[in-house]
Amino acid sequence: MSESATPRVHIVGAGLIGASVGIGLSADGWAVTIEDVNDESARVARAIGAGGVLGDESPELVVVAAPPSVAPAVVQQALRAWADAVVTDVASVKQPIADAATAVDASRYVGSHPMAGREISGATAAQGDLFKARPWVVCPGQASEHAVSLVTRVARTLQGDVVVMDAAAHDAAVARVSHAPQVAASAVAAALGPLRHDDVALAGQGLRDVTRIAASHPAMWADIARLNRESLEVTLDHIIGDLEDVREADDIGEALTDLMERGRLEVARIPGKHGGPTRDWVPITVIVPDEPGQLLKLLSDAAAVGVNVEDITIEHSPRQPVGLTTLHVLPERAQDLLRALTSHQWEIASP
Amino acid sequence: MSESATPRVHIVGAGLIGASVGIGLSADGWAVTIEDVNDESARVARAIGAGGVLGDESPELVVVAAPPSVAPAVVQQALRAWADAVVTDVASVKQPIADAATAVDASRYVGSHPMAGREISGATAAQGDLFKARPWVVCPGQASEHAVSLVTRVARTLQGDVVVMDAAAHDAAVARVSHAPQVAASAVAAALGPLRHDDVALAGQGLRDVTRIAASHPAMWADIARLNRESLEVTLDHIIGDLEDVREADDIGEALTDLMERGRLEVARIPGKHGGPTRDWVPITVIVPDEPGQLLKLLSDAAAVGVNVEDITIEHSPRQPVGLTTLHVLPERAQDLLRALTSHQWEIASP
Repeated sequence: MSESATPRVHIVGAGLIGASVGIGLSADGWAVTIEDVNDESARVARAIGAGGVLGDESPELVVVAAPPSVAPAVVQQALRAWADAVVTDVASVKQPIADAATAVDASRYVGSHPMAGREISGATAAQGDLFKARPWVVCPGQASEHAVSLVTRVARTLQGDVVVMDAAAHDAAVARVSHAPQVAASAVAAALGPLRHDDVALAGQGLRDVTRIAASHPAMWADIARLNRESLEVTLDHIIGDLEDVREADDIGEALTDLMERGRLEVARIPGKHGGPTRDWVPITVIVPDEPGQLLKLLSDAAAVGVNVEDITIEHSPRQPVGLTTLHVLPERAQDLLRALTSHQWEIASP
Repeated sequence: MSESATPRVHIVGAGLIGASVGIGLSADGWAVTIEDVNDESARVARAIGAGGVLGDESPELVVVAAPPSVAPAVVQQALRAWADAVVTDVASVKQPIADAATAVDASRYVGSHPMAGREISGATAAQGDLFKARPWVVCPGQASEHAVSLVTRVARTLQGDVVVMDAAAHDAAVARVSHAPQVAASAVAAALGPLRHDDVALAGQGLRDVTRIAASHPAMWADIARLNRESLEVTLDHIIGDLEDVREADDIGEALTDLMERGRLEVARIPGKHGGPTRDWVPITVIVPDEPGQLLKLLSDAAAVGVNVEDITIEHSPRQPVGLTTLHVLPERAQDLLRALTSHQWEIASP
């Protein structure tokens, strides 16, 4: 196969990720086939352009997009079924699948983790550009150069942001940036249990932010926790230890200060825009009546003085028909914006 | 004093909350004086219209807006210094201050907790409408009707959303909706410590949401933790217990599913708009080039087909000059919006 010809790709698993890979590669002119253990899922995926039915010709690349719990076995099956094909998978945990692949043929297996975000499932939600501008982790392991370049090419074609990592390092990292935060968010939400409804209504934006991902469906997370148990346990021990240090401290204020100082240093490392340092945007909170067009008017008034809005957050008031909308802008533009909004009769809630 | 005449108010503490109360009441025509242990803070607050200098005439209402750590003592001093005045305070913890007040005169003390949000401090950030549309908890305790009506009138004048609660119930509630979530968010952030910078860059919107409040300054939180230690400990025990159940489970997947199911039920109780049930808005994610005016154009295109945007979230890509902007709209308008955006050449990232 020359580098310019596109390889025949077969996708095993027609859920959101599998179907989206199929749609994206098909749209780029690749020859794609797709299957699923569920006939109806496969039918839907094919109907929306995710690929055709596998014929007699063997695929050159197999993308395993099965649920994490079965991904190790399906990767092994694929390596055995197509003895010349490169195999990749898209699960959120990489080392257990690499181990399973190594038991068959490590040279033909490359791990992938396209970090496509939202907890939506099923082929009907699939989009060819689901991966655009999102990190797509590639774990080469002991794969051949050919295998790595093939999988990297898929990621690039789908406009993912390729990040090459060791599988174990990937699993340790996602335990801390993704898996343990999910568990902690659910635990914070579950701790609301004893409160009356009126008490829960005291919630501010802080609680909403912390618990947003606690609304996720547990099915996939259960699989992820089982596959990444070791790294998740180490991270949970870290978090539990810090919470216990606060809980047991002689001076709870001092212990919390220590924890918060360490947390602040880490938050500052989470990238802001374009991988640069996190910007110190200035928040300007405006009281926006909850009527169609008000948000547009607000942004128009900001644009009229040439102020670019870097970020927006909207906090809906539980009891009043207004939303507190916060515009985040560069510090040097904050005064201009405040002046402009005030002159347009906007009510500023807090700077 | 008649109900229509406004009482003479003296504010002790010229930080963000104290100065904002002063500005708001002064703007409404009340006679306000303000002091601070720090002369410069008092001078700044007076300069921006938060009140004058206390003269010979005794105040009828004293608002203690001192840091939580000294609030109990300052409330006692105020009750003693002005034997006819009603005294309130604005700290985030209410029972220890009520206990301190009861030792002097419970009939003249009413607890307040204006939940004004943002972690910004100092009089220069003060605004008279800091409290507008935010919950303002009033804890009557054993106060006289006159005292309760006076404090409630302050809250209403500042357009707060008055919520009457028992002090102990307030403290138990805020431990769960505010104090423990802060501790947990900091612990999740601190657990990023062992990661390399490139690994932290795998962070998605989930981690950003969970850890946003971990960027808060610890000083006030240390005070709050000391004053609300008992309720905070009970809540931390709840959270630690749930994390340990996941950590120690024979089947970590089953344990996480149980925790997430409980968390989902609680998240659904956090009010959405206007105290109604949380709306099932449909998220539509658009790839927006990071250029001035693009966000405005996006909202204009949405408004042109009459679709109201209920909420917006912006996820900045760490490596590419685009932002993934998600518009949340009513389910029945999602298809119209998708069609309109597509016809205006917007790239839709995921449904």
